[in-house]
Amino acid sequence: MQKTSLKLRAEKKSIGFVPTMGALHAGHQSLMKKARDANDVVVVSIFVNPTQFGPGEDFEKYPRTLNEDLAKCGAVGVDIVFNPEAGSMYAPDQSTFVEVLKLTDNLCGMSRPGHFRGVATVVCKLLNIVQPTRAYFGLKDYQQLQVIKRMARDLFIPADIVPVEIFREPDGLAMSSRNRYLSPEERTDALVLKEALDLFRERVKKGERNAITLIKEMMELIVEVPSTEIDYVSIVDANTLEDVAMIEGRVVAALAVKVGNTRLIDNTIVGV
Amino acid sequence: MQKTSLKLRAEKKSIGFVPTMGALHAGHQSLMKKARDANDVVVVSIFVNPTQFGPGEDFEKYPRTLNEDLAKCGAVGVDIVFNPEAGSMYAPDQSTFVEVLKLTDNLCGMSRPGHFRGVATVVCKLLNIVQPTRAYFGLKDYQQLQVIKRMARDLFIPADIVPVEIFREPDGLAMSSRNRYLSPEERTDALVLKEALDLFRERVKKGERNAITLIKEMMELIVEVPSTEIDYVSIVDANTLEDVAMIEGRVVAALAVKVGNTRLIDNTIVGV
Repeated sequence: MQKTSLKLRAEKKSIGFVPTMGALHAGHQSLMKKARDANDVVVVSIFVNPTQFGPGEDFEKYPRTLNEDLAKCGAVGVDIVFNPEAGSMYAPDQSTFVEVLKLTDNLCGMSRPGHFRGVATVVCKLLNIVQPTRAYFGLKDYQQLQVIKRMARDLFIPADIVPVEIFREPDGLAMSSRNRYLSPEERTDALVLKEALDLFRERVKKGERNAITLIKEMMELIVEVPSTEIDYVSIVDANTLEDVAMIEGRVVAALAVKVGNTRLIDNTIVGV
Repeated sequence: MQKTSLKLRAEKKSIGFVPTMGALHAGHQSLMKKARDANDVVVVSIFVNPTQFGPGEDFEKYPRTLNEDLAKCGAVGVDIVFNPEAGSMYAPDQSTFVEVLKLTDNLCGMSRPGHFRGVATVVCKLLNIVQPTRAYFGLKDYQQLQVIKRMARDLFIPADIVPVEIFREPDGLAMSSRNRYLSPEERTDALVLKEALDLFRERVKKGERNAITLIKEMMELIVEVPSTEIDYVSIVDANTLEDVAMIEGRVVAALAVKVGNTRLIDNTIVGV
């Protein structure tokens, strides 16, 4: 893959890259289309990265759907699918890790220790292998996007990190590979994440500026759904990801909620 | 620098890179000559990297000799000297670090906590900026070389890491920017580092295989010189850098000794 990429770049071809863990859906395809529009060559990686899963998380049962994934890549004109083995991404004596501090202290970084170290490390590897001109990341994983932007900037990785809007089902549920874990009842219950974020936007629009009040209102809405268990409901500065007391400047309302056994995340950005 | 490098690589020019902290000497120049022989373009960086110095170490007083350095680069045909400001290498909110575990537990990693994190991070940045085909590192900093080789391999950095033999003064002292800290008496005393390594080689040649015995003999030689203070005298596996009990396979005798206030390192590799 790296040889191919270096050859393409030497031929002055631009490369658009969409790193994924497979189990592709229309959200991933929206990233691929953005990549297709702006680059000569589109590369998608499919790699379920073991180092970003903690003990007790869903690494083993994470959906692997390679044939469907390849069809979905083909449908939007992807040129290359890179699907490495774990053993070729991680040597037996692998010992190098990329850490992004501070940005990873809050939100998912707090509830998934080591997760972002795994993400930063594998994305650093993938960017070095694929040598993209532009790499595309969805805004649903807002903290991940910020971590990767920071890493690319700090390490002078010569790729543009391009954020892509959250892609939602018609009823508002943010697309996620993990949505397929949901039972029909849980699928309905999961709408409360988006409803909480809509409530947040509405209340901010009407003038509410107190973060604690807004968090409380979102939480009250979510706990009404018995199948849910809140991991966090936070309002953070859009750049530093630190909790804010008041809504001012660009802030993100971000939440992680278990619906049944499935942990889902969603977020929305407001600027006031 | 990165723009220049990407342009050169797109023109299919090979880049040989020698990262330095300045205070250049003939040892650095031997690396530059190797780079000159094998590449179209030779880049030398001069950057005294703050993050690899611990509290109480010699960051402030580390010799800065830019004019002499430029002359030395010119004398061996260096094309580009990259001399960034600390502020352009580290953003005020820099938060990304590259860590190489295990390899950094022993030797200088033990006596200089955080040192190799600083080294790995800055070398990762520099390799991304300079985009070399080949990067040259001296074997005097044996552990540093191993850490960088491991990092480049693990992160798939597309540069060959080329080791270069230790360059010594005629009397055997390994060249180091820190040698200029030595008083004339200390300069003589410092020869004991090389003498200890010579003793080690001689004793191994004659059949001694017990690492503890060899370490003891080296230490006894060094402590005879009153101005010295031993940081470590170790015999380690050349690949894993773990202490060995017996001399077998490729091993490195490595030592760090303060002579007066100046901490010096040296090493030698044997294969049996």
